[in-house]
Amino acid sequence: MYVIMVYDIEEKRVGKILKIGREYLTWIQNSVFEGEITAAKFKELKSRIKEKIEDEKDSVLFFKLKTKDLFDKEIVGTEKNPLANGTSYTI
Amino acid sequence: MYVIMVYDIEEKRVGKILKIGREYLTWIQNSVFEGEITAAKFKELKSRIKEKIEDEKDSVLFFKLKTKDLFDKEIVGTEKNPLANGTSYTI
Repeated sequence: MYVIMVYDIEEKRVGKILKIGREYLTWIQNSVFEGEITAAKFKELKSRIKEKIEDEKDSVLFFKLKTKDLFDKEIVGTEKNPLANGTSYTI
Repeated sequence: MYVIMVYDIEEKRVGKILKIGREYLTWIQNSVFEGEITAAKFKELKSRIKEKIEDEKDSVLFFKLKTKDLFDKEIVGTEKNPLANGTSYTI
């Protein structure tokens, strides 16, 4: 499956979540990751995040799609990680 | 179409982008909006954002899907805007 992950985490825990995110997905913008991931790895990712966050304060959102072809991406402004954005374009 | 919008904007301009975003989409988490939008309105939204941001510093990402049915949503941690998340669940 293809996953877009957006986190809203208190600053002191951001580093930990960034580190975990990079192990499974590609960083594309401040607080946003995306990438192809297996169901097993996705479960593991969520579990590892859950260990590190404070449930009452932090929030990590996942948008799950069957394939990457189901969405298009557009960017207004600067491309934060051009290497990760093969399919996107700046307008 | 259905749009997920994630912004990475310098703090002094965040208020303006939040205000514009709320006119077109539903706020679901810090720096994330989503919603059904027509192609015409989407064009207008991008144009209004482009007017307010600094191209070199700010970035607004849009994921565009044909319909909302093409993705599932999951949240780890707290639900920032429960009213906006009819289809999601907290794990």
